[in-house]
Amino acid sequence: MSLLAIDFGGTRIRAAWYDTALKQQARAETPTRVEDGQAAVLARLIEAARQVVPHGEVPSAIGVAAPGPLDVTRGVILHAKTLPDWEDVPLAQIISEAFGGVRTVVQNDANLGALAEYALGAGRGANPMIYMTISTGIGGGAIVDGKLFGGWSGLAIEPGHILVWDDCDKCYTRLEALASGTGLAAQAERGLASDAQALSSLRSVDAITGAAVAAAARTGDAFACSIVEAAGVQLGAALVNVMHLLSPQAIVVGGSVAQLGDLLFAPMWRTIHALVLDEAFLPPDLIRMAQFGDDVCLLGAALYAKESSS
Amino acid sequence: MSLLAIDFGGTRIRAAWYDTALKQQARAETPTRVEDGQAAVLARLIEAARQVVPHGEVPSAIGVAAPGPLDVTRGVILHAKTLPDWEDVPLAQIISEAFGGVRTVVQNDANLGALAEYALGAGRGANPMIYMTISTGIGGGAIVDGKLFGGWSGLAIEPGHILVWDDCDKCYTRLEALASGTGLAAQAERGLASDAQALSSLRSVDAITGAAVAAAARTGDAFACSIVEAAGVQLGAALVNVMHLLSPQAIVVGGSVAQLGDLLFAPMWRTIHALVLDEAFLPPDLIRMAQFGDDVCLLGAALYAKESSS
Repeated sequence: MSLLAIDFGGTRIRAAWYDTALKQQARAETPTRVEDGQAAVLARLIEAARQVVPHGEVPSAIGVAAPGPLDVTRGVILHAKTLPDWEDVPLAQIISEAFGGVRTVVQNDANLGALAEYALGAGRGANPMIYMTISTGIGGGAIVDGKLFGGWSGLAIEPGHILVWDDCDKCYTRLEALASGTGLAAQAERGLASDAQALSSLRSVDAITGAAVAAAARTGDAFACSIVEAAGVQLGAALVNVMHLLSPQAIVVGGSVAQLGDLLFAPMWRTIHALVLDEAFLPPDLIRMAQFGDDVCLLGAALYAKESSS
Repeated sequence: MSLLAIDFGGTRIRAAWYDTALKQQARAETPTRVEDGQAAVLARLIEAARQVVPHGEVPSAIGVAAPGPLDVTRGVILHAKTLPDWEDVPLAQIISEAFGGVRTVVQNDANLGALAEYALGAGRGANPMIYMTISTGIGGGAIVDGKLFGGWSGLAIEPGHILVWDDCDKCYTRLEALASGTGLAAQAERGLASDAQALSSLRSVDAITGAAVAAAARTGDAFACSIVEAAGVQLGAALVNVMHLLSPQAIVVGGSVAQLGDLLFAPMWRTIHALVLDEAFLPPDLIRMAQFGDDVCLLGAALYAKESSS
């Protein structure tokens, strides 16, 4: 059994060929360039996918990681935040037809990340297992009793959309707005604009991005550290809600912002210990670093294709 | 098959006898009187239970609703907020021995409420189904794929412990602290103390209780209505977190505070519509009134005993 995996992101399209042992045999990558329009993007996606298929071979199944919300049963992108004007696109059908009718399954990218970390990575065997990726945005997935958990809508879980309190705007906001890379940048911009006295190396960078805030925090810039610390506190509060509602055995955290390590995790843990109802909600080794990097969704897509064709 | 059900609460102990069709055949009730000590309370519990067992009969199984946290596998009360000094009490074993060794299972009271509403009540067949009881405190349970969901710790779900923002104290607090009966009373006390100008019929009641706040709100007392409205907003925010993490098909709400109806539910719905990520998280008939009243835990205990002995 050979599997074709496609990771269809807003910035990059990745494709890979996996053997039956889920070893990656070939890999291709191409920019998405959403601005070229749907037909051009889909053509580029299929071209990248063809590149990884060995000459004369046909995949046993195709797995596709796609941005949501999706109708996974029909393999349709309902609408996608990162892809303007993509409404009701029958992605599974289009890809399947391009490969002679091979069975093609589509799933939310973060859910496939969850599947990969559960089956082969840092969350192996944990029940329930929660996966969270904190980078430009915050996505996530849950595995309950060994199966991908989507709830009634198929859209759970969305840890980036847990409500936290924005003390500047005095309203509830989403965790993603404060603790993602985009959130770190927005908080830094806001802080520097509102306090002309605040000293920070970020005043001299070309563009305040999440990566710039992270880099400044790593050098000990006090202002940047305070932004990351606040994000850690909000992450901790959000995870307390995850614990009280799902009581996971493991929360696997990946993505570029998670690489900040203790700058983020120390205030997160302080908040968790202060707010959790009972220590019984804290199994040993609850919070774990993700084991797979950029290719986590490709691996998850291959796994998902394998599972759904067996 | 005949089932003995016991609901062991902090204020009252209830016992009932159910036939195999889960029809209640006899019922007894006695005050708990925690202050009498553990031995006296347990003796009273067993006496109440004996009263409902028909002469010469032996139950096929015994189900007990108890306050948590519990170790349900061993049937032990680990410690109970409502029962001071009850630490590591082997409740299942004690009750089983009193009835000649009959198989006895113990479960969290709100989880048994969830089971009853799922199997026979307002949440029939919903997946996932969430049950929430809003009275003196706020408890809850979840049914996923037809089974009681407890997560790793067995303690999920705890909807009363979802974090909400307390704008007076400027910190996160638990939903229960603002939206339970106790929470309504505390908010009213605080509001009347901090604003000597606030006019309210609550200034002339003997004791400000949740029931008093609810009664005043029902007569249109503007101050009491504002307290209930704020609780509704916080309930809505908490339920948005439930939706983004569990995406339930039904949320069954019971308890005395839920009887406030639109005074509570109108601000709740306004908040849900304002904060939910996507309308796809809102199935038709999402929020439903619980069908069973005071005996919901007895029925759940009978069901649970039946299921675990089959």
